[in-house]
Amino acid sequence: MKIKRSERMVVISNYLINNPYKLTGLNVFAEKYEAAKSSISEDISIIKRAFESSGIGEVETVTGAAGGVIFTPTISEEEARQTALELCERLSESNRILPGGYIYLSDLLSTPKLLRNIGRIIAHSFKGEKIDAVMTVATKGVPLANAVANVLNVPFVIVRRDLKITEGSTVSVNYVSGSSGDRIEKMFLSKRSLAPGSRVLIVDDFLKGGGTISGMASLLEEFDSTLVGVAVFADNTQEHREHFTYKSLLSVSSIDVKSHTVKVELGNIFDQ
Amino acid sequence: MKIKRSERMVVISNYLINNPYKLTGLNVFAEKYEAAKSSISEDISIIKRAFESSGIGEVETVTGAAGGVIFTPTISEEEARQTALELCERLSESNRILPGGYIYLSDLLSTPKLLRNIGRIIAHSFKGEKIDAVMTVATKGVPLANAVANVLNVPFVIVRRDLKITEGSTVSVNYVSGSSGDRIEKMFLSKRSLAPGSRVLIVDDFLKGGGTISGMASLLEEFDSTLVGVAVFADNTQEHREHFTYKSLLSVSSIDVKSHTVKVELGNIFDQ
Repeated sequence: MKIKRSERMVVISNYLINNPYKLTGLNVFAEKYEAAKSSISEDISIIKRAFESSGIGEVETVTGAAGGVIFTPTISEEEARQTALELCERLSESNRILPGGYIYLSDLLSTPKLLRNIGRIIAHSFKGEKIDAVMTVATKGVPLANAVANVLNVPFVIVRRDLKITEGSTVSVNYVSGSSGDRIEKMFLSKRSLAPGSRVLIVDDFLKGGGTISGMASLLEEFDSTLVGVAVFADNTQEHREHFTYKSLLSVSSIDVKSHTVKVELGNIFDQ
Repeated sequence: MKIKRSERMVVISNYLINNPYKLTGLNVFAEKYEAAKSSISEDISIIKRAFESSGIGEVETVTGAAGGVIFTPTISEEEARQTALELCERLSESNRILPGGYIYLSDLLSTPKLLRNIGRIIAHSFKGEKIDAVMTVATKGVPLANAVANVLNVPFVIVRRDLKITEGSTVSVNYVSGSSGDRIEKMFLSKRSLAPGSRVLIVDDFLKGGGTISGMASLLEEFDSTLVGVAVFADNTQEHREHFTYKSLLSVSSIDVKSHTVKVELGNIFDQ
């Protein structure tokens, strides 16, 4: 398919956006669009400038026989802060407070545009790390893990708190449930869902006691896999007792059920 | 920010891809990139040609004071069939059969690239319908609903089979669980998660008895909302008893646990 240069650039940039972290040889484009490799190379350098100047991502060209182009999505400091500040505001809405001091989050974690930016922020904060899969626990973590995995272009893995026949053989571990730390429960991961030796990023919606995340970390050991890092949408530092490092987008410093107020600040992901 | 025309086209096409179904005035781009509205208009027509010739989507310009540009993602018949045939093959792998005649699907529904194409196929098959939200049931439906909602740029809504304190007030309905139709269970939806009067697309991973989907349809009535349609990743026509129309990407005609064979064909979404 021979197309004009300007159109070719639009189509190649769309390809890069949909294939992040993937090395593609320039000859793939040269053949597909019946153009000289040198023209494709010029297209790529224009796309590179456009993507980099507007905070879409980095475009790297690798020379040599096994060379090509790789797109790494990023997010500008400004856009990341803007997204997080908007989320701070939304999270502080007084009608989110549920009896028992819980915060209603589900609407924020089911809006594609917000999820996309959250995914970009979390993925960007682990830039340079090799990650093979994103792990989370059902149900509320799933859209978050999905969003981060989309950006990293790797599969995500869903740990369950119940046993489902459709998961086949599973491995289970015990974990401490609830912020009071008084209940021991089980979590399960399908044996087929994670290859041994994987490097895994754990993602979850809300970090309170930390028991769920510690549980997932021990599951990783059962799968001979490595924990690359932990990222959460929001943490509640008052109640965090577990000892692992993590990155948070937002930090809830107090929830007052009586006065219906929530205090939310930017999380430690912005400290770096 | 003044940038060169070629770079501007790359940046505008990235914007359109990330803001599907959204009307954006051309002056937004004209101001942002300090260009004449007529130049932006030319950029858009190049992007339109590129997107349409390569099956990325349709670009429509609306003239007048409230006018602008809208991008509607599509997928070419060829790319849709290719994706579905690849999924047929993957689904037919003999090691997917679980005791009891279930098929292991989770890996396919957790690969970003596959999910993106599945989302495009399902969204495209409801082209022209007004959809306000995508509904599914936890857990395996979530990535699918997320994928379709990404393309449609609308929120998704997660029905649960258990009661969670973090969901606040919920509405519940009874549904018939299991393909033998012998158990009645409850499903729950947070009152905050769906606005009354919404037009909703129901998405699920596997259609067997149809009880879960009928349950979601009755939840929609409780929320004074309208069912636009039903789409499933795979159906098993042998066992389908409920009476509603649906679209399926794949169709499983037989599962033989003894001989470890699954017969999978293209679903009825390709009949149109």
